[in-house]
Amino acid sequence: MKLGMIGLGKMGYNLALNIIDNGHSIVGTDVDAELVNKISRVGGEGVHTIEELVKQLPTPRVIWVMVPPGEVTRQVIKKLSDLLLDGDIVIDGGNSHYQDSIQRNALLTEKGIFFFDVGTSGGMVGARNGACTMIGGDAEVFKTIEPLFKDISVENGYLYTGPVGSGHFLKMIHNGIEYGMMQSIAEGFDILKKSQFDYDYESVAKVWNNGSVIRSWLVELTQAAFSKDANLEEIRGVMHSSGEGKWTVETALDLQVASPVIALALMMRYRSLEDDTFTGKVVAALRNEFGGHEIVKK
Amino acid sequence: MKLGMIGLGKMGYNLALNIIDNGHSIVGTDVDAELVNKISRVGGEGVHTIEELVKQLPTPRVIWVMVPPGEVTRQVIKKLSDLLLDGDIVIDGGNSHYQDSIQRNALLTEKGIFFFDVGTSGGMVGARNGACTMIGGDAEVFKTIEPLFKDISVENGYLYTGPVGSGHFLKMIHNGIEYGMMQSIAEGFDILKKSQFDYDYESVAKVWNNGSVIRSWLVELTQAAFSKDANLEEIRGVMHSSGEGKWTVETALDLQVASPVIALALMMRYRSLEDDTFTGKVVAALRNEFGGHEIVKK
Amino acid sequence: MKLGMIGLGKMGYNLALNIIDNGHSIVGTDVDAELVNKISRVGGEGVHTIEELVKQLPTPRVIWVMVPPGEVTRQVIKKLSDLLLDGDIVIDGGNSHYQDSIQRNALLTEKGIFFFDVGTSGGMVGARNGACTMIGGDAEVFKTIEPLFKDISVENGYLYTGPVGSGHFLKMIHNGIEYGMMQSIAEGFDILKKSQFDYDYESVAKVWNNGSVIRSWLVELTQAAFSKDANLEEIRGVMHSSGEGKWTVETALDLQVASPVIALALMMRYRSLEDDTFTGKVVAALRNEFGGHEIVKK
Amino acid sequence: MKLGMIGLGKMGYNLALNIIDNGHSIVGTDVDAELVNKISRVGGEGVHTIEELVKQLPTPRVIWVMVPPGEVTRQVIKKLSDLLLDGDIVIDGGNSHYQDSIQRNALLTEKGIFFFDVGTSGGMVGARNGACTMIGGDAEVFKTIEPLFKDISVENGYLYTGPVGSGHFLKMIHNGIEYGMMQSIAEGFDILKKSQFDYDYESVAKVWNNGSVIRSWLVELTQAAFSKDANLEEIRGVMHSSGEGKWTVETALDLQVASPVIALALMMRYRSLEDDTFTGKVVAALRNEFGGHEIVKK
Repeated sequence: MKLGMIGLGKMGYNLALNIIDNGHSIVGTDVDAELVNKISRVGGEGVHTIEELVKQLPTPRVIWVMVPPGEVTRQVIKKLSDLLLDGDIVIDGGNSHYQDSIQRNALLTEKGIFFFDVGTSGGMVGARNGACTMIGGDAEVFKTIEPLFKDISVENGYLYTGPVGSGHFLKMIHNGIEYGMMQSIAEGFDILKKSQFDYDYESVAKVWNNGSVIRSWLVELTQAAFSKDANLEEIRGVMHSSGEGKWTVETALDLQVASPVIALALMMRYRSLEDDTFTGKVVAALRNEFGGHEIVKK
Repeated sequence: MKLGMIGLGKMGYNLALNIIDNGHSIVGTDVDAELVNKISRVGGEGVHTIEELVKQLPTPRVIWVMVPPGEVTRQVIKKLSDLLLDGDIVIDGGNSHYQDSIQRNALLTEKGIFFFDVGTSGGMVGARNGACTMIGGDAEVFKTIEPLFKDISVENGYLYTGPVGSGHFLKMIHNGIEYGMMQSIAEGFDILKKSQFDYDYESVAKVWNNGSVIRSWLVELTQAAFSKDANLEEIRGVMHSSGEGKWTVETALDLQVASPVIALALMMRYRSLEDDTFTGKVVAALRNEFGGHEIVKK
Repeated sequence: MKLGMIGLGKMGYNLALNIIDNGHSIVGTDVDAELVNKISRVGGEGVHTIEELVKQLPTPRVIWVMVPPGEVTRQVIKKLSDLLLDGDIVIDGGNSHYQDSIQRNALLTEKGIFFFDVGTSGGMVGARNGACTMIGGDAEVFKTIEPLFKDISVENGYLYTGPVGSGHFLKMIHNGIEYGMMQSIAEGFDILKKSQFDYDYESVAKVWNNGSVIRSWLVELTQAAFSKDANLEEIRGVMHSSGEGKWTVETALDLQVASPVIALALMMRYRSLEDDTFTGKVVAALRNEFGGHEIVKK
Repeated sequence: MKLGMIGLGKMGYNLALNIIDNGHSIVGTDVDAELVNKISRVGGEGVHTIEELVKQLPTPRVIWVMVPPGEVTRQVIKKLSDLLLDGDIVIDGGNSHYQDSIQRNALLTEKGIFFFDVGTSGGMVGARNGACTMIGGDAEVFKTIEPLFKDISVENGYLYTGPVGSGHFLKMIHNGIEYGMMQSIAEGFDILKKSQFDYDYESVAKVWNNGSVIRSWLVELTQAAFSKDANLEEIRGVMHSSGEGKWTVETALDLQVASPVIALALMMRYRSLEDDTFTGKVVAALRNEFGGHEIVKK
């Protein structure tokens, strides 16, 4: 199969290599000219505009979009809706909100263009060597691109999930679970650190990865992290987030699902972004008001 | 009534004044000689040892203990168990753990001494002008000291709660609720602060105190705090705690009560004691491992 | 002042009476003809359509909208935007989302109509006898209606909060705090109930209302509730919610404020709507899988 | 090595088989005579009393205790302290509290008996085929029993963790993390279930196990559970717990570690044990008091 890849960043580039390795051809583009050159050097066909990319592809075209979610993805898909023709296929493999995907599908469907919303998990390593993909879209048309997903995913690592929206929804929930799992692991190590015992964290993660109930890729990554910096002394505990945890909690609220663990995992990330909090100031001031408890001056 | 007061700190001193105002006599002692002098200057009889205090009181003696919970209270009550006689009465008005109170009662009961565990709420202002008291102990003997509690409490502000332990237990739960309420108020103001609007916090607290559903003494104290420092710029948001919130959560766990709000109010206090967390470091390291997300170096 | 009241339900009717008591005139309407008759019987002027209501008012007209938030409020304000003229004033006293209020203001501003978004707290009793009102809108025009708010609110119980949106935003946060406070109180009583002691809950609430740190209107209402049903045996613990707690949490997420207590208060409400949960089934199934722990069959 | 196994329940029996498979000899006992017979039929030597078991072992004796934590473990170890001699070795492989283990070690040390507290993870399957073991105790003496742990654990699946207490502490934290992970996974599936999409849960768990970030043994078990009951319709969502999650939270509180995710995972288990809650009743009653919101009668 010859397909287009729009976006050659960390994820797109690795996916492109993975696709090429599996015997397919890639026409790739990116706003960063250097990345276009890079893909050309490794067997892809680098082009500098989406228009050019569209021209290089046989019909029906298959174009994988791997750009930042939100406005950038919206613009790229809007542009594709103008350039593509009836029967062409657009795949959004990024972390778009599932409701955006449903809306974009409506736009593309008007023109007879097929849209698939694909959640891609496994990090950069997965993108390169075998990803986990969750694919929403038309069930019949999916059959024509199923071989591609079979090739780029690990064994049993792709799933057709239902109509458009279901792919990104499932990836969103996956990430919500990931937030909760990561926070669980991290809280556990935090208690270890403050305990009376003197554990070697890398060894702990290693033993847990061999036979324990919590063995998992995340604990493997924990082991890897501690192998590089035994006490994480070089890292500040600032926990950024990229949207999907928040969307999961918002969705839980919309569906009236009590999801305290995922919600708290997210909120502790927000808490980590602040050195001091107004919440804390108010409570400290109140304790001083009623009990004369000393307050810590700035 | 002539009674003893052991401990003349913030709470004990104000209670002593309150008791004197109500026509009773106080023999007071404290390890701090200055506080002993201070109580003498305002109409009390200051003595320098517990032995002396015991000697100055008519039998049956009534002694109010108002010292720090834990070891200090334990030692004072141990000493009293040696000095007092059958029929004497010991009141622990501090924030002791209710299980300690039950144990101390067993010790005193052996000698025929009566014990009352009294939760005292209302802060220093309440201690001075009218407290809220929750009293556990022998129901019959309580009648002999009920006039004292009627005098020092605000109207309808005292309650006989049942056997020993029930007074401190009820005060513990009161404080647990207080933790949750304070955190609720504080979170609300934190959202206001980060909002697009420019509220005057003192005015907000004031209007909420006049007719709203959340009108309360805590919101009054919030108003007072903002009147002194409009944006709490002088205060660091370090939220200390003195034990009862923790005991409430531990008790909830023992009784298998889901009490997420009180538990989180407590945990956010612990979080506020740290500038950086190991939890945060682990999550940041993991995000870097699987997604190449940048980490914030120290 | 002669003003219109659209919506004569629990809140609107009581507010209308309050307004009449304060010497103003009310032209009231409701889709329920019985409520229209009811307002006529107590000194108001009941009319059956919004058109009629508009005709009965002197210019510049002042119309208070007190209908369910969301679609109904949207339609009423849309209709008013068609009927009213430059200089007229619309007040939304309901629980609208502040972002809706900002949008509606934009619509009305185009026609020269002034809009105020008013958060009204204090329940039905407050609406009837003295409410707490938080008012967003044009600062200059506010002066013309300030006497009305002074009259219908308790002393110091109204606040001009800034531009449109700020009134409903502040009411939203008030309700978020209310969720947290209510859950705190309720968790406390739950622990009391499961404890080894045998408390009289009404007496507990009563003593806490007299001198304690947590004295508040909500604890007064707790006392009232227990006075009617000492153990709440007639009530199922189903906790419904009407939107503002959810909006508070969503806003906290948007602003990246960690607000665990308000979030958990909301989520425990959702949890209470379900007899059984899929979350619970998954955990129970997992415990069975790895540990052979028995599962409870349906 | 010839060693004793006290307790031949689910875990002890499987461990005994594992030990026998690895060429060691087992003398086993249990209060249930049937289990004693069972171990004899599969190559072990079943005896009916601990006294007999002690007699059958060569010195220095090595005895693995695998009985319920708490009182039963305490009694068994007390009895062993009376029967064993200087240089003998007791291994507690159960889920004892680490502080109990530290106390028991003190008791045994007085008699010159060595004690190891061993956290055993991996469920029954792990016990049978290769466990994950975390071992606290004397570092020198550990060398003499290290081959045993190497044999019965999966590769890299055992760790000497430090002094007595550190093994059970580490297992406790492992279980705390497990609680958080399980609740995360379960919340995710709960949101899926209430969503607009129609997922096949077994397929979802399967695809997540192949290449995704959250691939883990727990998600494998989730897949297994759904393969048996596609919608878990036969299971009630009652989530029991066996102590270690609670101990983890209590330890976190003692160490002032904010661990909201593990705490909430535990509290949602407690919530699942109740059909109705007093918390819910109080909140419902309060909503009725201030807003006239209808309450659900029993």
